[in-house]
Amino acid sequence: MSTIGDMDEDALIALFAPRLPQTDAAILGPGDDAAVIAVDGDLVVSADVLVENRHFRSEWSTGADVGFRAAMQNLADIDAMGAVATSLEVTLCAPASTPVEWVLGMADGLREACEPHGVGVVGGDLSGASEIVLAVTVMGETHGTEPITRADAQVGDVIAVSGALGASRAGYEQLSRKVSVDQEAVDLFVRPRPRIGAGLEGALHGATAMMDLSDGLARDGARMARASGVRLEVDRAAVPVHEAAVRTAHGLGLDDQQALAWAIAGGEDHHMLATFPRASAVPESWHLIGEVVDGPVGLVIDGEAPTERGWDHFSGN
Amino acid sequence: MSTIGDMDEDALIALFAPRLPQTDAAILGPGDDAAVIAVDGDLVVSADVLVENRHFRSEWSTGADVGFRAAMQNLADIDAMGAVATSLEVTLCAPASTPVEWVLGMADGLREACEPHGVGVVGGDLSGASEIVLAVTVMGETHGTEPITRADAQVGDVIAVSGALGASRAGYEQLSRKVSVDQEAVDLFVRPRPRIGAGLEGALHGATAMMDLSDGLARDGARMARASGVRLEVDRAAVPVHEAAVRTAHGLGLDDQQALAWAIAGGEDHHMLATFPRASAVPESWHLIGEVVDGPVGLVIDGEAPTERGWDHFSGN
Repeated sequence: MSTIGDMDEDALIALFAPRLPQTDAAILGPGDDAAVIAVDGDLVVSADVLVENRHFRSEWSTGADVGFRAAMQNLADIDAMGAVATSLEVTLCAPASTPVEWVLGMADGLREACEPHGVGVVGGDLSGASEIVLAVTVMGETHGTEPITRADAQVGDVIAVSGALGASRAGYEQLSRKVSVDQEAVDLFVRPRPRIGAGLEGALHGATAMMDLSDGLARDGARMARASGVRLEVDRAAVPVHEAAVRTAHGLGLDDQQALAWAIAGGEDHHMLATFPRASAVPESWHLIGEVVDGPVGLVIDGEAPTERGWDHFSGN
Repeated sequence: MSTIGDMDEDALIALFAPRLPQTDAAILGPGDDAAVIAVDGDLVVSADVLVENRHFRSEWSTGADVGFRAAMQNLADIDAMGAVATSLEVTLCAPASTPVEWVLGMADGLREACEPHGVGVVGGDLSGASEIVLAVTVMGETHGTEPITRADAQVGDVIAVSGALGASRAGYEQLSRKVSVDQEAVDLFVRPRPRIGAGLEGALHGATAMMDLSDGLARDGARMARASGVRLEVDRAAVPVHEAAVRTAHGLGLDDQQALAWAIAGGEDHHMLATFPRASAVPESWHLIGEVVDGPVGLVIDGEAPTERGWDHFSGN
């Protein structure tokens, strides 16, 4: 099996570049000092990194899984602004011992995630490293509409999420316990599948504040509360728990409350959390989970601070 | 000394964010799912990564040096298109043992490099890692002018560089040999100082092809030759050697030919390499070093393939 240490940088690029997704927005694609991209409206930009043994493990995720996940979580960030992603810059740092097949798989995973949305890889960088680091910057455009921040939730708004939560964490629980009770949850952990476009839908329905759930409802919701200077009151019974999380809990001999805890604190589902001026504005497929109220800034669930916490990527180092 | 492992992610961000440079182009700065940036013309975007013990060593470079260098090499990439940089996305992966001071210094270095050019940090990501990885994506705008690629050098053009070469490599030679004979070269290795704006100047003077010299004249020039499908004929005696490289060579008991070899193969000076339709078009402060001719594609120096090679970031892994 050949490794990237056997190849020079130009040869490796020449090998994986044809597998990368392309975008019609590119006026000049990869290969020069910089790419040139058409932007309709303002530029919307975000970055997310995946680090081996912190965000993924190579015994759990293939290169294709890692590429897919890196793209998806970045696309969700642009969607969460009510904007439309067009392009990615992808920086890969990897040990010389990394199989070339891993890198080609990563390119395939990026393409699988991006192609349905017309998003392309327009550039990036490569380096050796002692562990795999995949750093992605995503760029999108507003098409002239107002971006939806997390800072404009208003007292009196309702709170909603665009999908059922907890599946990703349920997959992680299986892998970390080395048991297999529900494949869908595992699949959703290694390849999160938020519905890209849900954010734009939320924006078009008048969302006042919006963000994607990467670190869990409890932690991310608290961030929205702080940014908006409001109190988010979540109804525990209304939090939609993904069926794969419920099945996983049962398969592990745990109860529905455990699945609900994963939904509240799990993270990495990447569905949208948004506030809307009234319940009737919430898109049909979304789930109403609470309301924005006066009172001390923060997120409460059934009136209490959640005891579940999301991910902290520096902890456990 | 407190380390980043002692802090949670939000607290660390709150500490270094005020030190980061800001840009007037930001409609929405850091802190949300994505930043929103005004773009005049088309978006020009590039990414460059610095990995500890590969691109820098912590015994040679402070956090501020690393931040400065990361910004500068990214700004040079946008300048090399004849475009104007506005903003950076900065992803930092670092061990829990990294001093908080290192991270604050990095922010200071980014600011020192960016502020003179009105460039701001508009977002990024943080993660733990087993070594420091600083991945930067830079964004700029064309202001409606045509970007200068590396692919349009024409037979009959002259070749020029925007600054004297070899200082960075001369600094590296001192540090790696653990001797100190010329401080300027060392300073230019840890903090490259290409003149940002030289690329725009080249574009306004009618440059046909342009790139910044990150991997050395020999290697990067060969890339330009391949991209343009031409032969770059460089006159060895005309290659401008930085005085700090000459002083370093002499200080190490080496001759002028060694300094010239550093200028040809050294890399990381980040000055511009460009082709112009005629010698009279070359900006005054630039150095004419050769011409574009018919013949086999590639770069030759005094008629021969250079034996000096630039950096290959996967080698030596």
